Amino acid sequence: MTGLRCTECAAEHEANQLQTVCRECSMPLVATYDLQAVSRAVTRDDLRHRDSTLWRFREMLPLDTDLDPVTLGEGGTPLLELPTLGRNLGLHRLLGKNEALNPTASFKDRGMTAAVSMARALGASSLAAPSAGNAGGALAAYGARAGLPVHIAMPVDVPSANQLEAQMCGANVTLIDGTIADCGRWIGERAKSEGWFDVSTLKEPYRVEGKKTMGYELAEQLGWTLPDVILYPTGGGTGLVGMAKAFEEMRELGWLDRSARLPRMVAVQATGCAPVVDGFLAGSDRGVVPEAPHTCASGLRVPGPIGDRWMLRTIRETGGTAIAIDDDTLLEATRQLARDEGIFAAPEAGALVAACRQLLKSGELRADEQVVLFLTGSGLKYSECFEA
Amino acid sequence: MTGLRCTECAAEHEANQLQTVCRECSMPLVATYDLQAVSRAVTRDDLRHRDSTLWRFREMLPLDTDLDPVTLGEGGTPLLELPTLGRNLGLHRLLGKNEALNPTASFKDRGMTAAVSMARALGASSLAAPSAGNAGGALAAYGARAGLPVHIAMPVDVPSANQLEAQMCGANVTLIDGTIADCGRWIGERAKSEGWFDVSTLKEPYRVEGKKTMGYELAEQLGWTLPDVILYPTGGGTGLVGMAKAFEEMRELGWLDRSARLPRMVAVQATGCAPVVDGFLAGSDRGVVPEAPHTCASGLRVPGPIGDRWMLRTIRETGGTAIAIDDDTLLEATRQLARDEGIFAAPEAGALVAACRQLLKSGELRADEQVVLFLTGSGLKYSECFEA
Repeated sequence: MTGLRCTECAAEHEANQLQTVCRECSMPLVATYDLQAVSRAVTRDDLRHRDSTLWRFREMLPLDTDLDPVTLGEGGTPLLELPTLGRNLGLHRLLGKNEALNPTASFKDRGMTAAVSMARALGASSLAAPSAGNAGGALAAYGARAGLPVHIAMPVDVPSANQLEAQMCGANVTLIDGTIADCGRWIGERAKSEGWFDVSTLKEPYRVEGKKTMGYELAEQLGWTLPDVILYPTGGGTGLVGMAKAFEEMRELGWLDRSARLPRMVAVQATGCAPVVDGFLAGSDRGVVPEAPHTCASGLRVPGPIGDRWMLRTIRETGGTAIAIDDDTLLEATRQLARDEGIFAAPEAGALVAACRQLLKSGELRADEQVVLFLTGSGLKYSECFEA
Repeated sequence: MTGLRCTECAAEHEANQLQTVCRECSMPLVATYDLQAVSRAVTRDDLRHRDSTLWRFREMLPLDTDLDPVTLGEGGTPLLELPTLGRNLGLHRLLGKNEALNPTASFKDRGMTAAVSMARALGASSLAAPSAGNAGGALAAYGARAGLPVHIAMPVDVPSANQLEAQMCGANVTLIDGTIADCGRWIGERAKSEGWFDVSTLKEPYRVEGKKTMGYELAEQLGWTLPDVILYPTGGGTGLVGMAKAFEEMRELGWLDRSARLPRMVAVQATGCAPVVDGFLAGSDRGVVPEAPHTCASGLRVPGPIGDRWMLRTIRETGGTAIAIDDDTLLEATRQLARDEGIFAAPEAGALVAACRQLLKSGELRADEQVVLFLTGSGLKYSECFEA
């Protein structure tokens, strides 16, 4: 890693100390690498002899290679063909990357292993974040593994499993009568007064580095090619922008063909909380904050994501789109995924299945395109959605 | 695979048709292999180029190599050092294999991928099993993946997450006011009248083949050595006997040193349901069926396991032991594991932590021995145990 750069104003920041957002414009920072040095140090074939965790992409992750990461064995999740679901939807080449096979059963572990490893290495003595659900459990787990105290603020209507996992791992959990935005404000204030390091989505630069490994793994599992379309359930959006960053890096590294087209990135949200979809449809470079955000897909309950510009830019640059699904439809589609393929996923994944159906109907998706769904977590944490 | 042999009377059975238990003595059957042919066909080093699912051990699994398995990406779970927990217990080399990183968040997936793959290949048209918890969810998932109808009987007090996951995957779930033994009788009768194939633990020969891959992975992850001691939470006991079988096979294959000592296998149960512990302490070759089996660790609620002789033989032959832990102690130890290492595991895993403490105290375990805990599933399915 060579440093950190603002995603909006390009101001450079030092990577050898704890950083949050850009000191000039308060926008997210992103890690830069000496890609020529990496391409000399490691080849695609070298990876075959490494273990299957995301730390196999060590040279493209921010932690100094002489330090041990804070790891629980995250990454290396299966990319599965979904033939029955595909047939039922009318897609010939449908794949799902099942992120439930992570230590705390969601994709949040990828971001947290990177962020907590870096925070510990750079001297943080305690960690804090707001969470709409899975991120809280993940931060609690990696904080415990690192031996650092953790403070989490969650909305009162967060799934009970998320509260439980955070509490079991010893985190201090505060329930707030509000959205994740209110939780974020609460954490921000306390972090300042108490000296906690705030690892909120995109308010520190390394969760996105962990999340981008979904893109590295996808390319490797597809034999160093990319699919035509990626559907991604979009809350904070770290994975969406992270994967696009990974694809660019892999082209520079020569791991992907330099002329390879990036997949069309499709942001899928819930009709009750669709800031990115509304911003996209309005032709804006900013998200549109909903008045009363609500959806049972708690990971999508992010009304004002700080990465909205970065996401909208990524969607447009890749020729993608953005689409919102109502709760009844996404829950039924989650049931269909379980029945058709034996994968009991989080309702965010059901939103993707329903989005496929609608995009096929509108012609924005073709039956012969290779489509990858990111199944971001396990349905086990969302029992309230299905038992009612 | 060369055939099937009875574990008690050694009667040979054909492997090219659906088989249940021994036609002579009704005891479990076990798969035999031509190990010389396998050792010519594949070496340890060949494995390094294969993907990380348990099907990497393809030649030592029963499915014909020209058939596709029914897979959801199971196996390849992380073997993690547990330094903080080890220090707190007084063990220098404590490791945990986290089986929660499987498609349905437990070790049951290993058995089901093998059993369902074989059942489909041999012509089964529907599948059935009783389940104390996780096996039901796993069977439902693999049945859905295979496109086969699934029938599951569970005790009424099974964790609600296990019911939910089975129902989501489209299984027909019947709740029985009784133990898993009562569920097993119900399934056995219906299977006969309805033509369901019964995949109850050790009543068909292939779940143990899938489970044995825990032993293969462990050896590979330890650089083709074995630990001194393995602690295993013992319900049906398939993994306990399966791993011992795997170790013997690997010695024959030359993958392990032929003089390598097998780990001492320790069966850990709950005081409310400890048939194997009581049989072990009584010096019997049979388990002792408890009168009113009860424990919050639902996977241990197996009062009369059909594999009792096989388990007791394995424990004695490896110089192991058996120990029971009460529910309060195992729940508190589950909390300690989560706080110390960030792993929110099923309470069966807590029983192992508590067992370590007691065995160290009694001198049956030494501080410098390498000890592996099998963390068989995720705590997310046991919210009732922790929320009360």
